[in-house]
Amino acid sequence: MLGKCLDNVRKNTPLVHNITNYVTVNDVANILLACGGSPIMSDEPEDVEDITAICGGLNINIGTLNQSSIKGMFLAGKKAKELDHIILLDPVGAGASKLRTDTAVRLMDEIGFTAIRGNISEIKTLALGSGTTRGVDADVADTVTEDTLEGAVSFVKDFARRSGSVIAVTGAIDLVSDGDKCYVIRNGRPEMGRITGTGCQLSGMMTAYLVANREDLAEAAAAAICVMGLAGEIGWDRMQSGDGNSTYRNRIIDAVFNMDAQTLDKGARYEVR
Amino acid sequence: MLGKCLDNVRKNTPLVHNITNYVTVNDVANILLACGGSPIMSDEPEDVEDITAICGGLNINIGTLNQSSIKGMFLAGKKAKELDHIILLDPVGAGASKLRTDTAVRLMDEIGFTAIRGNISEIKTLALGSGTTRGVDADVADTVTEDTLEGAVSFVKDFARRSGSVIAVTGAIDLVSDGDKCYVIRNGRPEMGRITGTGCQLSGMMTAYLVANREDLAEAAAAAICVMGLAGEIGWDRMQSGDGNSTYRNRIIDAVFNMDAQTLDKGARYEVR
Amino acid sequence: MLGKCLDNVRKNTPLVHNITNYVTVNDVANILLACGGSPIMSDEPEDVEDITAICGGLNINIGTLNQSSIKGMFLAGKKAKELDHIILLDPVGAGASKLRTDTAVRLMDEIGFTAIRGNISEIKTLALGSGTTRGVDADVADTVTEDTLEGAVSFVKDFARRSGSVIAVTGAIDLVSDGDKCYVIRNGRPEMGRITGTGCQLSGMMTAYLVANREDLAEAAAAAICVMGLAGEIGWDRMQSGDGNSTYRNRIIDAVFNMDAQTLDKGARYEVR
Repeated sequence: MLGKCLDNVRKNTPLVHNITNYVTVNDVANILLACGGSPIMSDEPEDVEDITAICGGLNINIGTLNQSSIKGMFLAGKKAKELDHIILLDPVGAGASKLRTDTAVRLMDEIGFTAIRGNISEIKTLALGSGTTRGVDADVADTVTEDTLEGAVSFVKDFARRSGSVIAVTGAIDLVSDGDKCYVIRNGRPEMGRITGTGCQLSGMMTAYLVANREDLAEAAAAAICVMGLAGEIGWDRMQSGDGNSTYRNRIIDAVFNMDAQTLDKGARYEVR
Repeated sequence: MLGKCLDNVRKNTPLVHNITNYVTVNDVANILLACGGSPIMSDEPEDVEDITAICGGLNINIGTLNQSSIKGMFLAGKKAKELDHIILLDPVGAGASKLRTDTAVRLMDEIGFTAIRGNISEIKTLALGSGTTRGVDADVADTVTEDTLEGAVSFVKDFARRSGSVIAVTGAIDLVSDGDKCYVIRNGRPEMGRITGTGCQLSGMMTAYLVANREDLAEAAAAAICVMGLAGEIGWDRMQSGDGNSTYRNRIIDAVFNMDAQTLDKGARYEVR
Repeated sequence: MLGKCLDNVRKNTPLVHNITNYVTVNDVANILLACGGSPIMSDEPEDVEDITAICGGLNINIGTLNQSSIKGMFLAGKKAKELDHIILLDPVGAGASKLRTDTAVRLMDEIGFTAIRGNISEIKTLALGSGTTRGVDADVADTVTEDTLEGAVSFVKDFARRSGSVIAVTGAIDLVSDGDKCYVIRNGRPEMGRITGTGCQLSGMMTAYLVANREDLAEAAAAAICVMGLAGEIGWDRMQSGDGNSTYRNRIIDAVFNMDAQTLDKGARYEVR
């Protein structure tokens, strides 16, 4: 049951070092606090190794990357690897610019992540671009729907196996695989796409879930995705006439704050393939 | 009617590249999503040309500028110009420091903007400082009131003509001109000044409006200003006892999210001079 | 009475220059506007001296520091000192990394602050590390409770005397001293720790209080702490079923927005030792 993953986060208060974009960083910090984790942000190369050393997990998000923060990502990533920490990559905008694609691929090849979370387009970009994943069949549809699900599940499993990372593809249907099993998750609401940073928030929270649940990483990642999607459903139910995306953002983080194991186990909608 | 400008934004989902300050960037992203646009943020010189190439508009805001982001502004601006994209300048703090004034003036002279939006003091600084606008009579009052309106309208029209940009001066009364006609807008509430970044938000949204309504840029800019001001009125009406500026921020973005063409046409308060 | 400090802020609209982290900067700006101040953010070395010159106070917060912003901190700090402005240091994460500790200590030694605000661990780090405070007895407990209060009060008084700064240690019990008297404050709620940046917000607001109340700096700092803690209590009372930390953040800033002198004087819970 996923509920115990949630309880483990609340029990262990995982400390997560985030090198993330300045657009959604405040929401990432607040959702980490909401779920029971504790956030630290630092991207300066001279600072990141000390900071990551006192944490249990490292969340690297390449949105608004710059030359200095890229250096910070590699330094922090290598130190975290050396210390056997959880390391997650959110390849925001991979495929949209050469710098983002190259940085994400180099990070993958040189560091090796516990988990990678992105949309199908970003994940396909990594699958095609990375030396360690050469041979992955990325000839998969650009959206994951019931019709394209079978091919997408194969792709995600294959990429997870070859990369050695838990791969999480989020969208209307979410997929998470460790190369063996694949969680197919149907929580969430389409209106979540009208808020900036629900993906970044999920990556932050997923890092905390992985840190507190190292014995089954795919399950931990799936639990974080179900929490986020279910919070999107609970938050939407609390919306009132005149409310819009700014209030919805608050309601989702609030729902994560109030989520308990029982609510999660009752509301999570997933199957394992 | 301005309502069709709003519908065009919702129909076309204009993608807007923002090089903007880290203070209000999250609200800029959320208001772009609220109005029906789609935001991307990137300021790294090596990244900005690729990112701006996939967008329809570029919003340059010089709040919290730094040496690296300034380079990014010039590179993105030139690429966007080359691709005939919409380019907007928000000269935050022009006149308050030499670096801000010089950067804004250089950007104006070297790039040439579709539109420039600022308060009267920032716009006067540009009118006085720029080589391409030498001769503009900036001997205009420091606030736009009913008493000083006539002179301000002349100034804005003149500056728009000489600069070749749509000029938007926002304050208690807002003015927008393309050099020919000048919209005089009386939407909004004074309490909006107690929230950080309503100006930055407007600049982001205005860029989306310009992208989706290229056939009449002054009208598009006026529509964005009316949406923002009207959202400020609608949001204020929803305030409850104990609410303050933080909740008001959410209510304004929410009102933009829920705004439709009919509401805009009914609520917009403007005249054309 | 502390209420007059609040009124002085509202009357004088102190302009505060903030060099602060990108995580909580938006909330710092909004709380400064909520309390009656006015925020400007700038960290670029070429920009900071001009910006700080037009302000009354400078708030330096070292969270997410980088090589460029560190240069900005020294340049702005020296200019502000030269102009006899209020200068506050928030040593976020001092003790957690060498760069943060060294930067905070160097800033203390080279600039000299009007006030320093942090948690007990950060303040102890400064007390131990700084040349100007050598000899301070930092053998004090790591949390301030009723049991450890007496030692903590002595430590704060001693550090204030030796450093020449008003020292504010915030936690479950807050302490503020100018070396002579020490305010012991018991406002606030533990749930405030589940929101990112309540400390950063307090530092921003405290800078505004110091600027508007130069005749008694310890009292001004104590007033800001009481406002923040009381806003945390008032905001919590307005929470509804299903609300969480994201809504709580808004409610606290809203409560600062609505606070008046009478409410503050009635709700402030402090003693002077």
